[in-house]
Amino acid sequence: MALIVQKYGGTSVANPGRINAVAASVIRRSRQGDQLLVVVSAMGDATDDLIALAKSVTAKPDPREMDVLLATGEQVSIALLAMAIKARGGDATSFTGPQVGIITDSRHTKARILRVEAKGIRKALDAGKIAIVAGFQGETETGEEITTLGRGGSDLTAVALAAALDADACEFYKDVPGVLTTDPRIVPEARALPCITYDEMLEMASAGSQVLNARSVEYAKRFGVPLVVRSSFEDVKGTLIVEEEPGMEKVLVRGITYAKNEAKVTVLGVPDRPGVAAELFRALAAADLNVDMIIQDISESGVTNISFTVSQGDLPRTLEVARGVAARVKADDVQSDENVGKLSIIGVGMRSHSGVAAAMFEGLAQAGINILMISTSEIKISVVIEKARIEEAVRVLHKRFGLETDQVELARPFVTAPEEVGMLTSRMRRAGKVRPAPKPRAKARRRR
Amino acid sequence: MALIVQKYGGTSVANPGRINAVAASVIRRSRQGDQLLVVVSAMGDATDDLIALAKSVTAKPDPREMDVLLATGEQVSIALLAMAIKARGGDATSFTGPQVGIITDSRHTKARILRVEAKGIRKALDAGKIAIVAGFQGETETGEEITTLGRGGSDLTAVALAAALDADACEFYKDVPGVLTTDPRIVPEARALPCITYDEMLEMASAGSQVLNARSVEYAKRFGVPLVVRSSFEDVKGTLIVEEEPGMEKVLVRGITYAKNEAKVTVLGVPDRPGVAAELFRALAAADLNVDMIIQDISESGVTNISFTVSQGDLPRTLEVARGVAARVKADDVQSDENVGKLSIIGVGMRSHSGVAAAMFEGLAQAGINILMISTSEIKISVVIEKARIEEAVRVLHKRFGLETDQVELARPFVTAPEEVGMLTSRMRRAGKVRPAPKPRAKARRRR
Repeated sequence: MALIVQKYGGTSVANPGRINAVAASVIRRSRQGDQLLVVVSAMGDATDDLIALAKSVTAKPDPREMDVLLATGEQVSIALLAMAIKARGGDATSFTGPQVGIITDSRHTKARILRVEAKGIRKALDAGKIAIVAGFQGETETGEEITTLGRGGSDLTAVALAAALDADACEFYKDVPGVLTTDPRIVPEARALPCITYDEMLEMASAGSQVLNARSVEYAKRFGVPLVVRSSFEDVKGTLIVEEEPGMEKVLVRGITYAKNEAKVTVLGVPDRPGVAAELFRALAAADLNVDMIIQDISESGVTNISFTVSQGDLPRTLEVARGVAARVKADDVQSDENVGKLSIIGVGMRSHSGVAAAMFEGLAQAGINILMISTSEIKISVVIEKARIEEAVRVLHKRFGLETDQVELARPFVTAPEEVGMLTSRMRRAGKVRPAPKPRAKARRRR
Repeated sequence: MALIVQKYGGTSVANPGRINAVAASVIRRSRQGDQLLVVVSAMGDATDDLIALAKSVTAKPDPREMDVLLATGEQVSIALLAMAIKARGGDATSFTGPQVGIITDSRHTKARILRVEAKGIRKALDAGKIAIVAGFQGETETGEEITTLGRGGSDLTAVALAAALDADACEFYKDVPGVLTTDPRIVPEARALPCITYDEMLEMASAGSQVLNARSVEYAKRFGVPLVVRSSFEDVKGTLIVEEEPGMEKVLVRGITYAKNEAKVTVLGVPDRPGVAAELFRALAAADLNVDMIIQDISESGVTNISFTVSQGDLPRTLEVARGVAARVKADDVQSDENVGKLSIIGVGMRSHSGVAAAMFEGLAQAGINILMISTSEIKISVVIEKARIEEAVRVLHKRFGLETDQVELARPFVTAPEEVGMLTSRMRRAGKVRPAPKPRAKARRRR
């Protein structure tokens, strides 16, 4: 019998009809013999409504009380889902974050999980009940403070409980069929990936994909919790997110992400002497400005140009800081360009295969798209290009790397339905792996 | 420094504007030097909305999960009130029922308080904070079950905390200026009473007045917590509810209550032998039917008639049960009358003064109102009359007993503003009374 943690987001429980649909689905799964722990978010716009309510009481709500307020959103969801399950003949018990012992620090509205007691959960599961747990919330060690975990908090609750209970998998039910090769609004041929590594998923998240919060993926990677992203509306297999395995490198590019809310800043005529770049970026960091890509031109006659990107919202303050530093170090000028976007290709395969960057640049060049900046990591290549051409570039590269076909399955035949993940990981765990990372059952088969 | 518990109902915190008004009022009071613990209900119709939400998920919501759901209503209120107070420069901390240690049994949706830990409250108060506590909710000993206290639960939370903390007074902010002599919709001259005894208040509650729930008054009486009922909208003195004192008996009638949802049932021709009445009322009790007044006629030639009242909603099932018993004991017939109402006059004075009943019956007779049933307790006389004449009867008796004038103050000059209650009861407590019951400071003065 596998222990599966499921997480349903706000859209999946947005109204009584959808709550009943989730209840039916949970009961069906439970009758297949797995133990189920279900984490839920607040209904639809409930959290936004609570924030608006607080703002109508005071323009600057106190963070401690904001957490007391926001925590009610998920509490409503667990009660409704548990009663829906019971009304349909299933057996369920709801738990708030404090009841289940999600212990956090006291940084209100963005608390960090310190430990997970998972109080009462084993007892409920062993009694044949489905445990319904409120996502997003916890309490401090003394129980005096209710806390919330910030953006993506419910996903994190699910992963943390899966880790604490040594669950066989943690499944996320989203309004997408899985982790997609790219944004389907731009490329209709975008497909759900059968599997992806934690590291690729982390690069996807940092490069703009919003399927799963990076914190949750990091937590899962640390504790070796296999993740599954599935659709809450259609019965498709979804995407398995696991530790990297040898076969997975056969895919060069797993996915393409983009971000349009970037701005490029260039400091021109910077004296090329040690410490100047450090002074600039120390000043930006001190102002809490998050710099993404950084490029320094090759120095000519003792001066150089330094370019970097920030989010558009941060541009005015960034220019202020950068101009201050430029004046101090006697640089010539500071220019900015909001007409840019960032595009990234991600894949563990590029670590062991050369030519991926070349293929990317070639593809863009053939389409006549000019590259303004380049930045690479071990498994990601990002470029900054003209914003107006971002969508075209995504389409060109999606095709260039064959992402619309099932080429990715070359690397790893999708041997498991998500329902089988539990069995699979259990088996591996029994085989002595403390941090289970599913391995292909069979040698990679060529599909085409 | 007095410790005052205040309780604000749903109407008082129905919207952000009112929450800010309560915040301003609480801060004002706190700056006068009292320690304040504020208990709040859910906003306006929030509880009804949550019940409707549950019913839209399932027709028969599970009681345990209903409590998890309903508890969010008060949690929203405490967060908003605490943030409103902080935004206005006051210092406040919110507490849920579980956080403050309201320990109950596990009878979901109608739990009984077992004990009150009042965790963290002293610490908050001693740090100069205003403690904001969610009414209506608690948890079981193990913390595994969230519970709610049922009808009037928030009032009970306030009284229980006042008792546990040995508070100097527990003030209820209502949409009435105090406990009134009668319903002002019927008698525009109805006045707020300056003071009333716990026992009178209990009779008022059982006879139809809905100002304070009987459970809360009983709890306050048991622990000697002085209560104050005041308006949340106007700054009036309100009504002090305390243990009876000698002077209070000088008033014959404190108030008049009525109930229109009564039905009278008569079993005719009942054989007058031991055990027959017992069989009837045992059967009604077994069917969970609550009988109010009971009258048995004088027996004639071995048979008698038994009349009693029940609430109109219970009438169909009552008739069913009564007819079954009538058939078994060979009574002649069972008749019912829904065209009746109950009217009660209440006052501790009638215990030591004769002639109150006579004055009541005389007043009704002069108005040509026929009395169908009479029932008396030590401090209450109730009559059942034709429903259509209830309002007229209330007006006649209100005038007859001079309730529209300040005759009640003959008994007890109103020496204390509610703000002074704390000081007064503190003084008495220091004087060695374990269960403080305020005494008049001076000899009763005649006002007229």
